[in-house]
Amino acid sequence: MKNITIVGGGLVGSLAAFYLARRGYNIKVYERRPDLRKTDISAGKSINLVISHRGFTALEKVGLKEEMEKITVPAYGRMTHDTEGNQNFYPYSIHGKAIHSVSRGGLNAALMSKAEEFDNVEFFFDEKCESVDLENATCVFRNYKTGEATTVTSDLVIGADGAFSAVRAEMVKQPRFNYSQEYISAGYKEIHIPAAADGSPQLDLKALHIWPRKEFMLMGLANLDNGFTGTIFGPWEGENSFETVQTEEQVEAYFKKFYPDAIPLIPDYKEQYLNNPASALVIVRCDPWKYKNKVMLVGDAAHAIVPFYGEGMNCGFEDIFVFDNLLDEFGDQDMGNVLDKYSKQRQPNGNAIADLSLRNFIEMRDLVADPNFILRKKIEGKIYKDHPEQWMPLYSQVKFTNIQYADALATAHKQDEIMAEVLAMPDIENKWDDPKIAEFVLNKI
Amino acid sequence: MKNITIVGGGLVGSLAAFYLARRGYNIKVYERRPDLRKTDISAGKSINLVISHRGFTALEKVGLKEEMEKITVPAYGRMTHDTEGNQNFYPYSIHGKAIHSVSRGGLNAALMSKAEEFDNVEFFFDEKCESVDLENATCVFRNYKTGEATTVTSDLVIGADGAFSAVRAEMVKQPRFNYSQEYISAGYKEIHIPAAADGSPQLDLKALHIWPRKEFMLMGLANLDNGFTGTIFGPWEGENSFETVQTEEQVEAYFKKFYPDAIPLIPDYKEQYLNNPASALVIVRCDPWKYKNKVMLVGDAAHAIVPFYGEGMNCGFEDIFVFDNLLDEFGDQDMGNVLDKYSKQRQPNGNAIADLSLRNFIEMRDLVADPNFILRKKIEGKIYKDHPEQWMPLYSQVKFTNIQYADALATAHKQDEIMAEVLAMPDIENKWDDPKIAEFVLNKI
Repeated sequence: MKNITIVGGGLVGSLAAFYLARRGYNIKVYERRPDLRKTDISAGKSINLVISHRGFTALEKVGLKEEMEKITVPAYGRMTHDTEGNQNFYPYSIHGKAIHSVSRGGLNAALMSKAEEFDNVEFFFDEKCESVDLENATCVFRNYKTGEATTVTSDLVIGADGAFSAVRAEMVKQPRFNYSQEYISAGYKEIHIPAAADGSPQLDLKALHIWPRKEFMLMGLANLDNGFTGTIFGPWEGENSFETVQTEEQVEAYFKKFYPDAIPLIPDYKEQYLNNPASALVIVRCDPWKYKNKVMLVGDAAHAIVPFYGEGMNCGFEDIFVFDNLLDEFGDQDMGNVLDKYSKQRQPNGNAIADLSLRNFIEMRDLVADPNFILRKKIEGKIYKDHPEQWMPLYSQVKFTNIQYADALATAHKQDEIMAEVLAMPDIENKWDDPKIAEFVLNKI
Repeated sequence: MKNITIVGGGLVGSLAAFYLARRGYNIKVYERRPDLRKTDISAGKSINLVISHRGFTALEKVGLKEEMEKITVPAYGRMTHDTEGNQNFYPYSIHGKAIHSVSRGGLNAALMSKAEEFDNVEFFFDEKCESVDLENATCVFRNYKTGEATTVTSDLVIGADGAFSAVRAEMVKQPRFNYSQEYISAGYKEIHIPAAADGSPQLDLKALHIWPRKEFMLMGLANLDNGFTGTIFGPWEGENSFETVQTEEQVEAYFKKFYPDAIPLIPDYKEQYLNNPASALVIVRCDPWKYKNKVMLVGDAAHAIVPFYGEGMNCGFEDIFVFDNLLDEFGDQDMGNVLDKYSKQRQPNGNAIADLSLRNFIEMRDLVADPNFILRKKIEGKIYKDHPEQWMPLYSQVKFTNIQYADALATAHKQDEIMAEVLAMPDIENKWDDPKIAEFVLNKI
């Protein structure tokens, strides 16, 4: 194997270029958008995102962790806001661990530049993938600016071209390729929460902020400039939906009722709400994530998920990390075998993080403010602290370890059953830290 | 509404042309394949299929039932074949009702010719749908023979272009369009079972024949010429799969072991097995089945299902019947509303028959030979006979009524629970017709 075509120069495509350039392959990356280091463009996606353990693990293997960590803002827990404006802080970890907010554009630009330092990496921009000949690993790109078509044949095509992947679109036409795209009933709309006039943050920087309102919520994630990206997640139709909150009056009433303490933070909240588009949230699953020894899918192209666990990019980075480990172990002589192993290892994990992310939506919007949920967190925290080998809360497994997502999901189902029994115990609010509770739980595992 | 473009001149597209021509619309049907009345072509699908109550209901509304029924062969039950060659007959209905085998090509040709009798219907062949502009109901077709492109704009586009629909492929790109394609782990291969040398049938014509072997099966469905279309359904991989039964010796051993009584009926079974392709079985689900007031999906384009209930075409014909009923009720002034109602009514039923069809695969290959299954059929048959208003077996609901598939599926889940209790009763084999059993069952409904 000598030449690799990477379709898509987003976060995962850029990291893949870096990883594989280190191995000496000639890498050509074709990106549909202009070079984001030269143009002010929106990716059509959220402005910032969360990087956590899996993402850092992948960066660390190739020596990029330290540098990238510098452009992140850590959040140590959730800060809930009720309709009275009261705030409550719930740490993510009993060990003080954090997840990290990072600018999508900033991280992408940094990874591109890092990859481009290799002589054997070339990036091409404004290149739309028009077709892929899977059998021959040949892609045709058309340049948006010149209108010219370029045909590129290589030994391996990596589809890193996102949720609406053109590479995957060819694979969907193959017999026995399973595929689904499922739009959830909620959409989202971004509302920027600026820093104060003096440049200081208006909200606690060390937390991810949530205004949980059951069927919908507002969320705030910090940026490097002390501002926050606010996101309203809500239903498309029905009460308090994007359909019914449409006019200036409706927006005002909606904010006053549900997010009153956010109003003073966002002077132009009405304009932003009315002008910013509402976007759909899709879950994409497919199988297999490869075609023979010629084509593989990574990142959102293989597993677009809803953003509620902040794991989209982390899962994509882990794809590259796992693929690289397989190359370490098996070499590249039999790429059919390596891609087969990659697909079989990753696909169930992609499905699991898709399920987990949907589950976390329920948790964030419905449960964070639920007394039983808070009690459960306390009980789990105590057991985890006293018996770390036997019980680790799901959130920690997903965000602070490299435990396979599929294993974390299986454990979660088991933990749910046990905790349901515990929470049904009489007077549990008062005896939750009784050693007998821990004993009961540990016997059930 | 004046002009309608129908993409696909298969069974459902042809029936749609007939139905809508009666309403006075100008209909243009574009079919990818040559005119099957003039060329000997394989549709790439099974040679014969089953028409039953829903299909006949749709034909009857427009006066086509009687004529079409003439080209069918009724089957009144299943004839199972065990590995000793013993045959057992299980009627489909306590009322002697039948399902009807019919040649796909024959029925399609007949429906095309019927539709063409209308002055306001035109069929175009060898026309591949290259693109669809959903917003403007504009399709571009390219003729395979001349290479010429034709652009057609009409008031409504009906996508009747099958499991791999080009119309649907455009809809898949729309935000909030849900879609899945799922290949089951079994495929199929056809093996023709000819009539005897003197033209007489070699198997009982009045039955659908099954050689159920748990993970796989052979099935035989009668043709008008006293021959049968045999179909082997089996796994792609593993024991007794298309992968492992590959050589002449393996085919011989496989047939001798599992279908010994079929060998004398098919002199060239080895050649057929080795030469005929194995095809994949896909389930397609999507939602919604329409785009605004401009485009709708019918038949396999909306709901490709596995063939085990023999309901694929029947469900497609029912789509047309339901749509026509909606036009009766609401007229065509507000097509957005009619298409919305059509989609909301049909989509859950498409999902239900997809589930039911998969369920019937299990029933046919695993259960038909299972004593408990046969006992259950007896018990249900008796209760149905004595209390027809209170209990109708699932098979009858699906094949002999117009009960919504979704309702039939919901009833089936309830019936399964009740029958599980009944079959768990001690000594049920001997007291299955005790009136107390019926009483128990009826109290549970």
